[in-house]
Amino acid sequence: MSVFDETRAQFHLPDGLVYLDGNSLGPLPLAAKARMAARMGDEWGHLLIAGWNKAGWLDDSVRLGERIGRLIGAEKGSVIVGDTLSIRIYQALAAAIAMRPERRVILSDSGNFPSDLYMASGLIETLRQGHSLRLVAPDEVAAAIDDTIAVVMLTEVDYRSGRKHDMKALTQKTHDSGALTVWDLAHSAGAIEVDLESAGADFAAGCTYKYLNAGPGAPAFVYVSPRHLDAAKPALSGWLGHAAPFAFETGYSPAKGIERMRIGTPPVLAFAALEAALDVFELVSMTEVRVQSRLLSDMFVHEVERRCPELELMSPRDSNMRGSQVSFAHEEGYAIMQALIANKVVGDFRAPNLIRFGFAPLYNSESDVVRAAGVLETVMRQKLWDKAEYRQKAAVT
Amino acid sequence: MSVFDETRAQFHLPDGLVYLDGNSLGPLPLAAKARMAARMGDEWGHLLIAGWNKAGWLDDSVRLGERIGRLIGAEKGSVIVGDTLSIRIYQALAAAIAMRPERRVILSDSGNFPSDLYMASGLIETLRQGHSLRLVAPDEVAAAIDDTIAVVMLTEVDYRSGRKHDMKALTQKTHDSGALTVWDLAHSAGAIEVDLESAGADFAAGCTYKYLNAGPGAPAFVYVSPRHLDAAKPALSGWLGHAAPFAFETGYSPAKGIERMRIGTPPVLAFAALEAALDVFELVSMTEVRVQSRLLSDMFVHEVERRCPELELMSPRDSNMRGSQVSFAHEEGYAIMQALIANKVVGDFRAPNLIRFGFAPLYNSESDVVRAAGVLETVMRQKLWDKAEYRQKAAVT
Repeated sequence: MSVFDETRAQFHLPDGLVYLDGNSLGPLPLAAKARMAARMGDEWGHLLIAGWNKAGWLDDSVRLGERIGRLIGAEKGSVIVGDTLSIRIYQALAAAIAMRPERRVILSDSGNFPSDLYMASGLIETLRQGHSLRLVAPDEVAAAIDDTIAVVMLTEVDYRSGRKHDMKALTQKTHDSGALTVWDLAHSAGAIEVDLESAGADFAAGCTYKYLNAGPGAPAFVYVSPRHLDAAKPALSGWLGHAAPFAFETGYSPAKGIERMRIGTPPVLAFAALEAALDVFELVSMTEVRVQSRLLSDMFVHEVERRCPELELMSPRDSNMRGSQVSFAHEEGYAIMQALIANKVVGDFRAPNLIRFGFAPLYNSESDVVRAAGVLETVMRQKLWDKAEYRQKAAVT
Repeated sequence: MSVFDETRAQFHLPDGLVYLDGNSLGPLPLAAKARMAARMGDEWGHLLIAGWNKAGWLDDSVRLGERIGRLIGAEKGSVIVGDTLSIRIYQALAAAIAMRPERRVILSDSGNFPSDLYMASGLIETLRQGHSLRLVAPDEVAAAIDDTIAVVMLTEVDYRSGRKHDMKALTQKTHDSGALTVWDLAHSAGAIEVDLESAGADFAAGCTYKYLNAGPGAPAFVYVSPRHLDAAKPALSGWLGHAAPFAFETGYSPAKGIERMRIGTPPVLAFAALEAALDVFELVSMTEVRVQSRLLSDMFVHEVERRCPELELMSPRDSNMRGSQVSFAHEEGYAIMQALIANKVVGDFRAPNLIRFGFAPLYNSESDVVRAAGVLETVMRQKLWDKAEYRQKAAVT
């Protein structure tokens, strides 16, 4: 029995469904329900306010941060959990900008997730200090790093194509020019091997509802390199980031270390699901996950190209150059994905024309790959996508 | 049978416990566990990514905002739920400041909750535009409002004394001087009658884990007066606040209406508990809640002063001038509260010397009041507080 048979048994997946959308929302870890019930009943219900001390709620942000940190090569004491990814990007970006006060340009790429760009725009508009956001094509980032750049803000794995930036090389180039990096790990954490420490990353942030499987809207995390922890100013300076939150002083002074990036009262209930989700990662190493995910996605590319030549691969062909997903382009992409879903193969669609498939070895198997490719072939051969109902776009695509 | 017998039956409260700390963390609504189990199992587990559309997750932020809005006198379409109170204060404050670009002073009072002051400091430091935070004593706020003030940021009910600001009068004075208001409703929502519309409030924010009983770290809400919705710039401009979030454009343009104050992916699991918590409020009006809470707190003040004259009332004696809590001062306050808790009467302590008791008629009864006062008398008469173990401060006080 492979280690992945063991991990697969930890998830609830509806019978007969091939779920290749863990890059959007990971499935329910079976233990999460009991963990949540205990948190609500035994902790909130019985301990009430005493839960903050007796059940360790107050320390969860740090403790869960350590657990995530181990999956992304972060140093001890450099990751904290809570809030959303957008908030964490803003926080990291604001801190980084403040550390380069003589520069005014944020460099990013056109493949970055829009919310990161929007948060940067909101920050720039709030600052009113003449900052600008410079967007270049993903493969032009390295060449665009010069000494006008304050911060290079990138998502390591492109949410559409799955193309993976070279974190170490770009970070080095950024440092050589005197700038700082903010890495978004939304499609990296739990999906690929990340080594923030050896890459020399400055700031990073990520979410836990994709490959970390902590549930819809699960809390995000932020990483600050230990070498910046004393200098990083938490623009979002909430009471739990204060050096002495329960002294209730009127003046702010930041906590030592990563705790200064805490903001408000943490999402204690959501942490229960996250805890159960992280437990699954104790069964396997990220190296094993990565090897298997490359195998699965390579197999899928091979099968799809063989069966459906009309679909154009939009992800790097070399699995070492991409994250844990592959995308194909077709002008009827939206309808094709609806037909796939109706036939129990779930991926998703990204405008304008991409069908996207995520491979999460914790619960996806080789037979999922074969089945998905087979259904896709049927959808294309029989034009199952050619129905009006499949062209009706839903709110969330 | 009173309506409050009915509401009391909706909560889990440990046998024999008198819980007077709902101003810090409300108790577990019995229906919340089943609601959460359904959200996790039936929705996340079975629907997976389709839950965003089919289970209405995407609309929850708005729908739950409407429900909270009805408890605080907000106009339709003016409240949205998600993120923490600290984040919502920052967001409201940043929007308000941007609407008064020619002014540089944020006025608040020394009784405001520290996190609000810290978030303001963080914003000021980030802006680097010469803003300052001016703090005055709570009863000096009205006199301090002048035409240098951009924003008056106040917590309606003081977290220590329970003193209640006159929201309508202060808002009027603020408007007369050309400034805007940001009201923190942490100790107001679900506790007292709030009428944001008739008060003419500009911005407001609040949490749902106190009198709204949605659980530890439950999401916050933000209110923007409909007259400002077109002008309010969401400094924290996340993708779900975009006019077309699923178009994934690289440029930001804010949604119409309150949806522009959405930021990142909402906390869907936490919303399940919030939904169950709000259901209890369908059984009773805020007028009934307020009348009963005044009765309970008046009774408590009367009983404590009669039995324990050495405790000094630190809350306004007139229950119309305070929120739903009362505080007493004593130099051994911390130890006294520990002794009370050991004897199954739970309030809390706030530095330097306050013991604090919240009255939530949804689950607190007159017999709770009599019992709490009796135990407090025993603690004081028999000096039960005079133990070394009661002087050991815990992380959360």
